Amino acid sequence: MVFLVQKYGGTSVGSTERIKQVARRVANFQAQGHALVVVVSAMSGETNRLISLAREIQAEPDARELDTILSTGEQVSIALLAMALHTLGVKAKSYTGSQAGITTDSAHNKARILKIDEKYIRADLAAGYVVIVAGFQGRDDAGNITTLGRGGSDTTAVALAAALKADECQIYTDVDGIYTTDPRVVANARRLKTITFEEMLEMASLGSKVLQIRSVEFAGKYQVKLRVLSSFEEHGEGTLITFEENKQMEQPIISGIAFNRDESKITIVGVPDHPGIAYQILGPVADANIDVDMIIQNVGHDGTTDFSFTVNRNEYSKTMSILKEQILPHIGARDVIGGNQIAKVSVIGVGMRSYAGVASNMFRVLAEEGINIQMIATSEIKISVVVDEKYMELAVRILHKAFDLDQEK
Amino acid sequence: MVFLVQKYGGTSVGSTERIKQVARRVANFQAQGHALVVVVSAMSGETNRLISLAREIQAEPDARELDTILSTGEQVSIALLAMALHTLGVKAKSYTGSQAGITTDSAHNKARILKIDEKYIRADLAAGYVVIVAGFQGRDDAGNITTLGRGGSDTTAVALAAALKADECQIYTDVDGIYTTDPRVVANARRLKTITFEEMLEMASLGSKVLQIRSVEFAGKYQVKLRVLSSFEEHGEGTLITFEENKQMEQPIISGIAFNRDESKITIVGVPDHPGIAYQILGPVADANIDVDMIIQNVGHDGTTDFSFTVNRNEYSKTMSILKEQILPHIGARDVIGGNQIAKVSVIGVGMRSYAGVASNMFRVLAEEGINIQMIATSEIKISVVVDEKYMELAVRILHKAFDLDQEK
Repeated sequence: MVFLVQKYGGTSVGSTERIKQVARRVANFQAQGHALVVVVSAMSGETNRLISLAREIQAEPDARELDTILSTGEQVSIALLAMALHTLGVKAKSYTGSQAGITTDSAHNKARILKIDEKYIRADLAAGYVVIVAGFQGRDDAGNITTLGRGGSDTTAVALAAALKADECQIYTDVDGIYTTDPRVVANARRLKTITFEEMLEMASLGSKVLQIRSVEFAGKYQVKLRVLSSFEEHGEGTLITFEENKQMEQPIISGIAFNRDESKITIVGVPDHPGIAYQILGPVADANIDVDMIIQNVGHDGTTDFSFTVNRNEYSKTMSILKEQILPHIGARDVIGGNQIAKVSVIGVGMRSYAGVASNMFRVLAEEGINIQMIATSEIKISVVVDEKYMELAVRILHKAFDLDQEK
Repeated sequence: MVFLVQKYGGTSVGSTERIKQVARRVANFQAQGHALVVVVSAMSGETNRLISLAREIQAEPDARELDTILSTGEQVSIALLAMALHTLGVKAKSYTGSQAGITTDSAHNKARILKIDEKYIRADLAAGYVVIVAGFQGRDDAGNITTLGRGGSDTTAVALAAALKADECQIYTDVDGIYTTDPRVVANARRLKTITFEEMLEMASLGSKVLQIRSVEFAGKYQVKLRVLSSFEEHGEGTLITFEENKQMEQPIISGIAFNRDESKITIVGVPDHPGIAYQILGPVADANIDVDMIIQNVGHDGTTDFSFTVNRNEYSKTMSILKEQILPHIGARDVIGGNQIAKVSVIGVGMRSYAGVASNMFRVLAEEGINIQMIATSEIKISVVVDEKYMELAVRILHKAFDLDQEK
């Protein structure tokens, strides 16, 4: 017997017909003697429908009330999947995040899981039930409904796998694994059989959108065996995320090209160049629960410097207001400028640690196509550049080719 | 300051525009210094949409899972109304049934409220919040989500008014009060300024559909001042439900004509006429949580009798199976027959207690139009007949006229 936590995303449960397919798949696993906890997302489109409804009432919906609304999407899915399993003669029981004992902090719309009281689920598993848990949601200590933010269902699955010590956490999605880049942008992108945890982290955070970044962090922290598979294929093996450093010798230099269109850039011009200034700028932004992605500060001159960072495009105007109202008046900077017609493109690979020249190669390829680089940030296993949004797809394609990612190695 | 519990039904919150209207109304009451708990239903159509979704998966949806799905309808409404109040600068907070501390028994789809832990709501009221509570739902002791059945939002409102000792419980609906009969059937039906609790009980149970019967029972039991008003009029006074017996001297003989299309009739033919037989028949039906409405057993002859009763049309086939599989084999009856093309029509009035001849008058009027009476049941304040469904509207119209209900008295 293997104990699996499986997660099915919004597309996999996008219609009652698809929910029945998921039920048949789950029933097959159970028939093979496996124990199963199944995490599901809202039916595809449902979360957007609910957000639109909320915005008809309030342009920037109250965070607590929005969570109360959004959590209904998964609540419907879990019950429908339980019913579908009942029709197949499989004992199954649904749990909302709150019912599953998933306690989070109180950061509505982007809450973090603090603990899971798994005794209810354990009891049902022992009694032979397939346990179905609503992804993406929990409750705080005061009983308020919280959500984990987009993609949070992956985090729910990994957190449950960690708490319940599952043998494997399987993320079923509409793709059959992790690719060298998005096949919709580069036709001959290839599926990777394995990817290291660190590469996956970079791929996810940079918008490859297969797995939610926090779920990968979680998996790394708790050593959860994590696999991405297609919910539309019967016998795919997907991509396994590995945590063993020493297997990386066989890795190619570059694993993939990631990109993200949901970014916006903000630059504070003429910041007095003295200690503590970065905190003065980013403290209030973090307090407003806005995630900052790239942060760039170059060497200053004449006692001032320019400080740039990127945030999600949805939070661009909110961030600009905070900067203009709360920060600029206090720090004596000259101006705040920004833009949201940008995209981020990154090359990723654990292998690049031991190879020089990846960055210069990347910049050369972009220059040859006349693509201007607006910002650069690097880490040991990735190099990211911000470019004009309209060049994004071109940049991804030429980099995928330049690093031979279309060749099986 | 007056402390009001107000309930807005599905039509009143049927669109985001209507939810904004409700918010303006609630904000006005608050501006007048009143404390408010607001109970809302699901947006109109939503409950049916969710039921259809469930039925696509499972023809007779699992009761527990169906409640998990159905409860999302109100959960969306409460959050939208809270947001709408926020946009008007009113402090407001939403509560699901579970969050509001509404504990029910475990009879899914038709649960009964056992207790309300009102301390959360009291604290918010004291802090100046408008408290918004999801109607129709609660949780049982094990944490399962339950629903109270159709119309259960009225019961939620009355139960909260009782638990919180509100000054008045106001049920806002799409009609401006209780009428002598349905104005869609009889054009000159009149609004009643007051109606006694008992008459109201009969009107509601007989399908006038303005108030849910259990809410009226609840109001009577806890002496909650209950008023039905229109959510589309600004200054209507609606219909007040009275509990004082001695005010009934001024009442006309008949208050109204009620009707119900959602009925089906079942007759067990040739039942051995001995003690305990009624229990043997209805026990298993009650165990299946099926509500029985009329029950008729006439004097038997030749040692057998016929036993008839009516149930909601939705439960007709389920009831027939129970009778055929569990009951008929054991009691030695001849057959079970039934039909669901029937309707019930009733004349109601506390005044008829002291007037003879109401029944005969009723039967004469029906006979003159050639309407055959299939079943008859009477109480001190009502007379109900079952007729072929196709004659229902005709019967209502001629009875409304025969008892002078179109005349102001």
